[in-house]
Amino acid sequence: MSHSTTTSERLAAFSDGVFAVIITIMVLDLKPPAEPTLHALLPLWPTALSYAVSYLFIAIIWVNHHHLMRFAPVATTRLIWWNFAHLFMVSWVPATTSWIASSRLAAAPMFVYALVFVFVEIAYLAFERTVLLQARDRDFAPGLRKIAKFRSWLGLGLFGMAAVVSFWAPYVGFALVCCVLLIYLSPRLPNLLNSGA
Amino acid sequence: MSHSTTTSERLAAFSDGVFAVIITIMVLDLKPPAEPTLHALLPLWPTALSYAVSYLFIAIIWVNHHHLMRFAPVATTRLIWWNFAHLFMVSWVPATTSWIASSRLAAAPMFVYALVFVFVEIAYLAFERTVLLQARDRDFAPGLRKIAKFRSWLGLGLFGMAAVVSFWAPYVGFALVCCVLLIYLSPRLPNLLNSGA
Amino acid sequence: MSHSTTTSERLAAFSDGVFAVIITIMVLDLKPPAEPTLHALLPLWPTALSYAVSYLFIAIIWVNHHHLMRFAPVATTRLIWWNFAHLFMVSWVPATTSWIASSRLAAAPMFVYALVFVFVEIAYLAFERTVLLQARDRDFAPGLRKIAKFRSWLGLGLFGMAAVVSFWAPYVGFALVCCVLLIYLSPRLPNLLNSGA
Amino acid sequence: MSHSTTTSERLAAFSDGVFAVIITIMVLDLKPPAEPTLHALLPLWPTALSYAVSYLFIAIIWVNHHHLMRFAPVATTRLIWWNFAHLFMVSWVPATTSWIASSRLAAAPMFVYALVFVFVEIAYLAFERTVLLQARDRDFAPGLRKIAKFRSWLGLGLFGMAAVVSFWAPYVGFALVCCVLLIYLSPRLPNLLNSGA
Repeated sequence: MSHSTTTSERLAAFSDGVFAVIITIMVLDLKPPAEPTLHALLPLWPTALSYAVSYLFIAIIWVNHHHLMRFAPVATTRLIWWNFAHLFMVSWVPATTSWIASSRLAAAPMFVYALVFVFVEIAYLAFERTVLLQARDRDFAPGLRKIAKFRSWLGLGLFGMAAVVSFWAPYVGFALVCCVLLIYLSPRLPNLLNSGA
Repeated sequence: MSHSTTTSERLAAFSDGVFAVIITIMVLDLKPPAEPTLHALLPLWPTALSYAVSYLFIAIIWVNHHHLMRFAPVATTRLIWWNFAHLFMVSWVPATTSWIASSRLAAAPMFVYALVFVFVEIAYLAFERTVLLQARDRDFAPGLRKIAKFRSWLGLGLFGMAAVVSFWAPYVGFALVCCVLLIYLSPRLPNLLNSGA
Repeated sequence: MSHSTTTSERLAAFSDGVFAVIITIMVLDLKPPAEPTLHALLPLWPTALSYAVSYLFIAIIWVNHHHLMRFAPVATTRLIWWNFAHLFMVSWVPATTSWIASSRLAAAPMFVYALVFVFVEIAYLAFERTVLLQARDRDFAPGLRKIAKFRSWLGLGLFGMAAVVSFWAPYVGFALVCCVLLIYLSPRLPNLLNSGA
Repeated sequence: MSHSTTTSERLAAFSDGVFAVIITIMVLDLKPPAEPTLHALLPLWPTALSYAVSYLFIAIIWVNHHHLMRFAPVATTRLIWWNFAHLFMVSWVPATTSWIASSRLAAAPMFVYALVFVFVEIAYLAFERTVLLQARDRDFAPGLRKIAKFRSWLGLGLFGMAAVVSFWAPYVGFALVCCVLLIYLSPRLPNLLNSGA
């Protein structure tokens, strides 16, 4: 009987491994300049900036993933596959980061970059819903669920807006993406808002 | 006495690490186009498609590996070496994926790609057999064993067929590989079939 | 209630994954020479030397990180984010290592290399402070805290000095960095000093 | 008090991460040929062969490392540093593997390849000695210790011989390395020999 269900621990550990490789594989794009002068570093600012933003994004995803996983003790088939879908979307971050860096934040690459964030968010929403099916009301009060969902949908809308805006004003789109990230910095924000109410 | 046998936990954790690196190392092949236009993305469809299929394949392998490992509490020498053989075969997936992508699904690369799947399947069959030696009948009923084995041999046959077909019609071979993957999506399919009987 | 706090175990495991990838990703820079002669290996000494020093640095960081984490049973939001800041700084080590190697320890790259060490140290100081907030006095006596802090500030000062010196004498700056590393070899040095007092 | 010693679990997990990355990073050298024909695969045999041998070598190292770690419950400073030295030596395997592949098993690269094996073995000997200091006689009988040590010294001697031989006959050196690997296939060989006596 104990074998008919699986704990989610190995799933969490495997996801951690994938996150760890994705976040550090972007480092391979940080190529040092050919000339050994500080001046040669200046044209590399798009690489450094986009690396920093993507790093922050993946760190935020990890924090939220880590926070959610605690409410899902069982690794159901559905949870496993939404988790893989989520990781698949995240795995496009390094390539698109590299594209906005090499094109110096041009319109089309910025649009695709924001689009990847939209898909990561969609997969996260489905993942979150699957996890919350397992979470008991005692752990995750209905009020909290509402706030958590609201935040996810808000993020999705803003990332979508960033994608559209990027076509005309890629810098504004990039700034918008950065703003959305700030909403996600703490996974416990909903708790705080709720306990304050 | 407790030292004469080893639990399979560290073996599972190490395998997870290897799977995590293999699945994300393929990301390095997702090179952004030189031109910052959406149009420049179109010729990259073989890369994106083959990445998606290989990702799905490795995800399926992980799910089945994860499912099997629960029945093998002890890391015997035989289990360790069949596990390494299995991982070795899986490690050829990124290179062959890259080859079918760069050759845009040509005949020879497609043949080698399907051949790697055949070898992964053979190593998996031996790995499965070793695990089932440890599993007690209470956990894994004889009826289940038969169905699990039937599925593995079916998969092996179909992958082999895909390899042969690829020589004349690489696109058909690729489609065949995708079909076989669908049979493996749930590691618990045999259980469901059996409990329904 | 048990869900309102998180143990720091998964944070430690994730950090280990990132450290493991960073320390081995530098291996990709160890390109074999084109000619198959021992003589062809000679010009590669800056690569080998800088790899060895960076490997030692990251090993030391891991040892100290590992040592500190034991005193922080709870993964607070603040701890998580200082940990990510720390890992972010460490993630610049491979790129700067590659730069000092390719420029054969030139002034500007050496300055940036030492600067990365300064930032790693700053993030570590903040991380250490956050951990020590959780540590009880029984585990970490006030005397020990003082010595640990003193060592961290000393390291910070010396790394800063190495950065400045590198501008005029990059080899001296490099030697200075190596010297600072020796102070950090054992995370338990403060304990030893204290218990000896 | 419980904080004054550290269990070796996190050290083992971190080492597993490094092993997993090193064993899969070699995959990046498996570049597909430019032409989409089976014939184009033939000149790649040195790459495939050296990858297979290096994979087997690292698998063997992992198995022996895994076997030894069970006897060392405490991560002492000495154990940590010999472990890092061991991993450092192993981290040179991918680069030298790449060199013997690109030079098609030429004399100098083969010599360096065998030399890396010698250094891995030396670090392993020191690591083994440190572990056995912790192991109680009940777990590791004196007879076993003698056999384990004999095997390690034999391996060291044969790897050294392979290095020297490679200068005149690189293929013979390579064959010798392969032979030594066979002695290490089972970490429990000493146990078997002893229990048979």
